[in-house]
Amino acid sequence: MYRNYYPSADWKKILTFSTNRETPFLIVLLDRVRQKYEEFRANFPSAKIYYAVKANPGIEVLSLLRDLGSHFDIASIYELDRALDLGVSANRLSFGNTIKKARHIREAYEKGVRLFTSDCEMDVRNLAKEAPGSRVFFRLLMDAVTSDSDWPLSRKFGCQPRMSLDLMLLAADLGLEPYGVSFHVGSQQREIPAWDAAIGQAHALFDWMEQKHLRLKAINMGGGFPADYVVKANPLSVYSEEINRYLNQYFGSSVPKIYLEPGRGLVGDAGVLVSEIVTIAKKSKTDLRRWIYTDVGIFNGLMETLGESIKYPIYTEKKGETGDVIMAGPTCDSLDIMYEHFKYQLPLSLESGDRLYWLSTGAYTASYSAIEFNGFPPLKTYYL
Amino acid sequence: MYRNYYPSADWKKILTFSTNRETPFLIVLLDRVRQKYEEFRANFPSAKIYYAVKANPGIEVLSLLRDLGSHFDIASIYELDRALDLGVSANRLSFGNTIKKARHIREAYEKGVRLFTSDCEMDVRNLAKEAPGSRVFFRLLMDAVTSDSDWPLSRKFGCQPRMSLDLMLLAADLGLEPYGVSFHVGSQQREIPAWDAAIGQAHALFDWMEQKHLRLKAINMGGGFPADYVVKANPLSVYSEEINRYLNQYFGSSVPKIYLEPGRGLVGDAGVLVSEIVTIAKKSKTDLRRWIYTDVGIFNGLMETLGESIKYPIYTEKKGETGDVIMAGPTCDSLDIMYEHFKYQLPLSLESGDRLYWLSTGAYTASYSAIEFNGFPPLKTYYL
Repeated sequence: MYRNYYPSADWKKILTFSTNRETPFLIVLLDRVRQKYEEFRANFPSAKIYYAVKANPGIEVLSLLRDLGSHFDIASIYELDRALDLGVSANRLSFGNTIKKARHIREAYEKGVRLFTSDCEMDVRNLAKEAPGSRVFFRLLMDAVTSDSDWPLSRKFGCQPRMSLDLMLLAADLGLEPYGVSFHVGSQQREIPAWDAAIGQAHALFDWMEQKHLRLKAINMGGGFPADYVVKANPLSVYSEEINRYLNQYFGSSVPKIYLEPGRGLVGDAGVLVSEIVTIAKKSKTDLRRWIYTDVGIFNGLMETLGESIKYPIYTEKKGETGDVIMAGPTCDSLDIMYEHFKYQLPLSLESGDRLYWLSTGAYTASYSAIEFNGFPPLKTYYL
Repeated sequence: MYRNYYPSADWKKILTFSTNRETPFLIVLLDRVRQKYEEFRANFPSAKIYYAVKANPGIEVLSLLRDLGSHFDIASIYELDRALDLGVSANRLSFGNTIKKARHIREAYEKGVRLFTSDCEMDVRNLAKEAPGSRVFFRLLMDAVTSDSDWPLSRKFGCQPRMSLDLMLLAADLGLEPYGVSFHVGSQQREIPAWDAAIGQAHALFDWMEQKHLRLKAINMGGGFPADYVVKANPLSVYSEEINRYLNQYFGSSVPKIYLEPGRGLVGDAGVLVSEIVTIAKKSKTDLRRWIYTDVGIFNGLMETLGESIKYPIYTEKKGETGDVIMAGPTCDSLDIMYEHFKYQLPLSLESGDRLYWLSTGAYTASYSAIEFNGFPPLKTYYL
């Protein structure tokens, strides 16, 4: 079954490295990250790629992508410092978090960042004051089109298009450069038409701004490109064909510059989380399902299983007849249950000490780990 | 409003300490922990108190409780090592997590732990092998009685009573000492009758075991004692009166030894989380609610607001007319929203940079912090 996700050579490398090593830990295959980056470059040759550092802020991942020529989207001044420390120049960075303190804007500006994203008046005023003259993307609220993603982005980010227009005019008045429109269709978005609606809305804003004699130059499509979980995604080429078609339909011969911010889409498939079964329990003699408690859970790597949102493929070397299981983590917290309603099936022969491999866990795992919840240390990561 | 939660002297101490200090951070008032511990001792004079280390594993809290004579309930060998490092002797510890690796049981046993909790056959066999002769509590599944707690414990822990009986007999056969029955009515349990049902079920197990000529000696009631959040709880004296009444009704003159494992009930009220408003946004001109984004969120301290479970009182020094708000954290994660459906009201005059004080945040906050999600560091804690 792992064969649907990893070639034999990769899998052998994972097993060899894992043998006799204390679980839990995450392995990230850097070659897979490189391949994915090259796939993005090949499929979106004219786009600028800003890796979303938050997906996996490992120094090894950032260094690799730095050497490959990637740009980086940062969520905080802490991510900014990490990128700068690795020798990434500030003109390869965008500060894409709409939520930022005035003094953090100033710090980013002083360190050379000139590209920001905004979605409200208070932030625009802070940007005008602390980062004068900077380029700004204005983020659209995408609540109408994100319902099909596994990890939807809700109303937290962006604002309604009419308000975006007002903010762009205000920004121009205050000496900023309204550079373009940004949106995010929701992480792990498998419904490609979500981009259609978003690009259409961006196009309307380009038009409105032109009526005000201001010319926007770029669209930042954020992330949303999926990794392969239990349900597999379309290949990236299908995304690029469709998205380019939408762009041509809306913008004709004057397609704006395109910025992409893949995170999960770049590093998700590259990770394998190796865990061990701690114990297996039934709650009564007649219980139809087994509880499998593993040494990894919501609070040391599997945060995205909250609400059973992301369904990672789970591989075990044991074979034979399978049965329904509930998967839970090792802490005393009742929330620390990965899958209870979604029916995973695992071999009946599983025992305490057997290993479970969680596939496609390269994104949004280790960095989400709690610092010491129930005393458990954060998830270790090894880069191969 | 803070006056409903903290005496003026405490509040003054908090404000003085907070001035000009970079937010976010948590302040824990050690005197309040001491008072609470003494309140537990006064209200449950014959009970053994095992502080649930996971609620707040700060060295300062553990040292204080060590000096006051408390016992400690640990959730992992990592918490075990911390307690031992602080000079707590192993006979003051119980390993209360039902989910534990065989080699971790061995390690705990080698370090002197002789009191464990179990709920399934695989774990009982591991205990018999790795911790021979130890005392074991058997945890009951409490799904029927936990629905009124704010943070219910679901079916993850414990097993049905008939299975407990089988496990106790097995444990005795294997040379362990079936010591008693444990249960947990759900954290932040405000409905005191939940203890009635649980004690009743424990009593039935004492009876069944006596028919098998085995005598249980103790009931471990776990935690569940509440902190004061937006909805205030009954004073501890009401809990102790009611619980003692239930014990007398079921057990008459032969009330077993009582073990309590307060966590939240001991340290929850002692904490104040000091944060700053990053920005305030509306999503359209006609938006009726403001989004208030603070520098603390789900992933750096407020994990228990997930699903809007725990509703912390929020205090601001600004006064005047109030309006509906949605409270969200500083990360690029759409899940990082504390309160959207529950209607908080805060002053209309609030601005970026204003401080917000989250009251009763001493439990389950700092230790839940992500190690570096979006680059943000874990929540700092100061003990006053």
